[in-house]
Amino acid sequence: MTLPIQPNRFLSDLHSLRQFGAAGVGKGVQRRAFSEADLASRRWLMDQIENAGLTPHMDACGNIFGLADGVGPLIGSHTDSQPEGGWLDGALGVIAGLEIARAAKEAGRPVSVVSFQDEEGRFGALTGSSVWGGAMSLAEADALTDDSGDSFAAARAVLGKTGDDVDPARFSGFLEMHIEQGPSLDLSGEKIGVVTDIVGIRDMRITMTGQQNHAGTTPMALRRDAFQALSGFNVLLNDRLRNVVTPQTVWTIGHVTLHPNASSVVPGRVTFSMQWRDGDLDRLARMEAVIRDVLTTIAADCDVTVEPSEVLGIDPVPMDPALQKALAQAAEAEVPGKWRKMPSGALHDASNVAQVLPVAMLFVPSIGGVSHTFAEDTAEADLVTGLQVLARAATSLL
Amino acid sequence: MTLPIQPNRFLSDLHSLRQFGAAGVGKGVQRRAFSEADLASRRWLMDQIENAGLTPHMDACGNIFGLADGVGPLIGSHTDSQPEGGWLDGALGVIAGLEIARAAKEAGRPVSVVSFQDEEGRFGALTGSSVWGGAMSLAEADALTDDSGDSFAAARAVLGKTGDDVDPARFSGFLEMHIEQGPSLDLSGEKIGVVTDIVGIRDMRITMTGQQNHAGTTPMALRRDAFQALSGFNVLLNDRLRNVVTPQTVWTIGHVTLHPNASSVVPGRVTFSMQWRDGDLDRLARMEAVIRDVLTTIAADCDVTVEPSEVLGIDPVPMDPALQKALAQAAEAEVPGKWRKMPSGALHDASNVAQVLPVAMLFVPSIGGVSHTFAEDTAEADLVTGLQVLARAATSLL
Repeated sequence: MTLPIQPNRFLSDLHSLRQFGAAGVGKGVQRRAFSEADLASRRWLMDQIENAGLTPHMDACGNIFGLADGVGPLIGSHTDSQPEGGWLDGALGVIAGLEIARAAKEAGRPVSVVSFQDEEGRFGALTGSSVWGGAMSLAEADALTDDSGDSFAAARAVLGKTGDDVDPARFSGFLEMHIEQGPSLDLSGEKIGVVTDIVGIRDMRITMTGQQNHAGTTPMALRRDAFQALSGFNVLLNDRLRNVVTPQTVWTIGHVTLHPNASSVVPGRVTFSMQWRDGDLDRLARMEAVIRDVLTTIAADCDVTVEPSEVLGIDPVPMDPALQKALAQAAEAEVPGKWRKMPSGALHDASNVAQVLPVAMLFVPSIGGVSHTFAEDTAEADLVTGLQVLARAATSLL
Repeated sequence: MTLPIQPNRFLSDLHSLRQFGAAGVGKGVQRRAFSEADLASRRWLMDQIENAGLTPHMDACGNIFGLADGVGPLIGSHTDSQPEGGWLDGALGVIAGLEIARAAKEAGRPVSVVSFQDEEGRFGALTGSSVWGGAMSLAEADALTDDSGDSFAAARAVLGKTGDDVDPARFSGFLEMHIEQGPSLDLSGEKIGVVTDIVGIRDMRITMTGQQNHAGTTPMALRRDAFQALSGFNVLLNDRLRNVVTPQTVWTIGHVTLHPNASSVVPGRVTFSMQWRDGDLDRLARMEAVIRDVLTTIAADCDVTVEPSEVLGIDPVPMDPALQKALAQAAEAEVPGKWRKMPSGALHDASNVAQVLPVAMLFVPSIGGVSHTFAEDTAEADLVTGLQVLARAATSLL
């Protein structure tokens, strides 16, 4: 069986959706969760679902479902954007889900579509799918606030009357297509990434305290310079991690604050973020051990005290083997030899959905590896390839 | 001849002065230029000068002179403080000057005293002595503003009618006693530092630009992380400078700003301060060459662009050989073998006065090397030793 998907209808819908909040140069959008543009796009999506003969349903979070009759795959992602976002990001996965569910409806088969709300974290992070998957209660979500202090509860109040929670038992599994948001496929020329797992994240905040001092009167040999300690930590850590990591492992010092942060004062204190990501739970733990070991070394070498915060994090989420296999077989059928298995370095709604359903993901190339910017883009032929692989995999599950 | 200095009167005056703006724990003071406490302390100082039989004189900047009859040495420093300062800092040099000028007056010899205004830079840096020494015009000083946007012109308006500029030709030279503000004398147990030169300063601001990127989806090998570039720069610079510097040379990265400074984003840009100090003009230039060379290396190694700002700075100021010798001989007489020659890593009013008079400086130990904090202190016996060395040197110049 082949579902009667229409690539041109899919592309047309993608371009229609990007008119909601169109901004910046090229195909940029500004469609934060619960903005005017986001609410208008949700009304439009509900209409498209209805026109497709599916049952439109919005739950208390603003998650939108297009429900088929009968148990079958759920396909989707999210349509909200970063403050400055691209036209694809999560929108691609939702519109691909819409097209496949619509084609399945035409063929009399049950495929449903979903657009989760606030994946981009105006309030929390992946808020809509966190509530639907059970990682967070609606009451907990309601208490979240955005940068202006507005609450999720107040934001969702504009939705008016909403529907009940959708029972996950209506679905046999969840498939999410997304742009890679990284450079690997673009560089290799491959068309599809079949995700093996969504990597786990560990995050800590570390404070090093030395001695704040006059930058003119304090000899180098007597300084306890917190920034020098951080530099030393960074260099030694990079070296020590080499024996532990894989080419997919990443670690980042992205946030640094010096005190008093003045050119004529030897920094007495530095606080910085230490984040690392990997698909393997054990490797995440071994990296933490290396980080703590290097901290101890630096504390002694630079005569500073180190105060690591509690380690926060999200564990890796392996993709369901059967769904992963369905995607891999579909990729090999559509673009033989031009696809790869790869981890997802970014979080996605699928992480939350994995709490209640088998899940799997596929990636299409991001031009230049960029995302979360107006410049984000993917060749339309690659978008269509993604749609075809996804439709073929969904078909194999029906 | 020996001047009839009275150590107890000197200590008593120092303790009287610290009542103006007494704050914090211990002997802390808050006596910013033109604050209520500063203005009250200036009225008190004018009274002490008058009581000593000297001629009190305040110029348009608020600099206070206690003028002797006839040409002779000028001794002093400043009485304004940092927002959170100690009781000594510049106050020590002013009260020592007051005691020696008073004793000289009693002995019929011409020694004058000065307290420069705004040395601590509420408005600029060393503002009062900059104008008196000619480095800056009064009109230029008037245009300076503090952190609240108040101008030097508005601040000094409260002084009412002030006197003419004092002619430097009234003085044969300038002697300034100061706390070391560093740890060298305290660690060595020596009592006096005879300053050889006030070091020069070079200051630049450097921006490194790489590529801002997602901290989850950007492989380590493809990153152009600006913070990693700064770390590499710092480590390589420390290594390369070893062949150029002396134990007195210092260099500092005290200010660092990352962009966007978020834990989940690979930093695309970093701006940081690079400051270095040395008593030798040629060495300052050689250090700049090393810095630029390392920047070029890092730009290539880390695939970032580097934009160094213009280099700002103040050239080294050598102390007058004859005055330096007078201080050294006095130190050897008072505390044989327990003094050293040393550079001043901090700027002082003497830097500006050197434009119009021969100058020299001496240091007394700072307990723990700390200053610009309420905790700043020096043993009273060491203060008296400083007074005695300074008086002996002044006497030799009469």
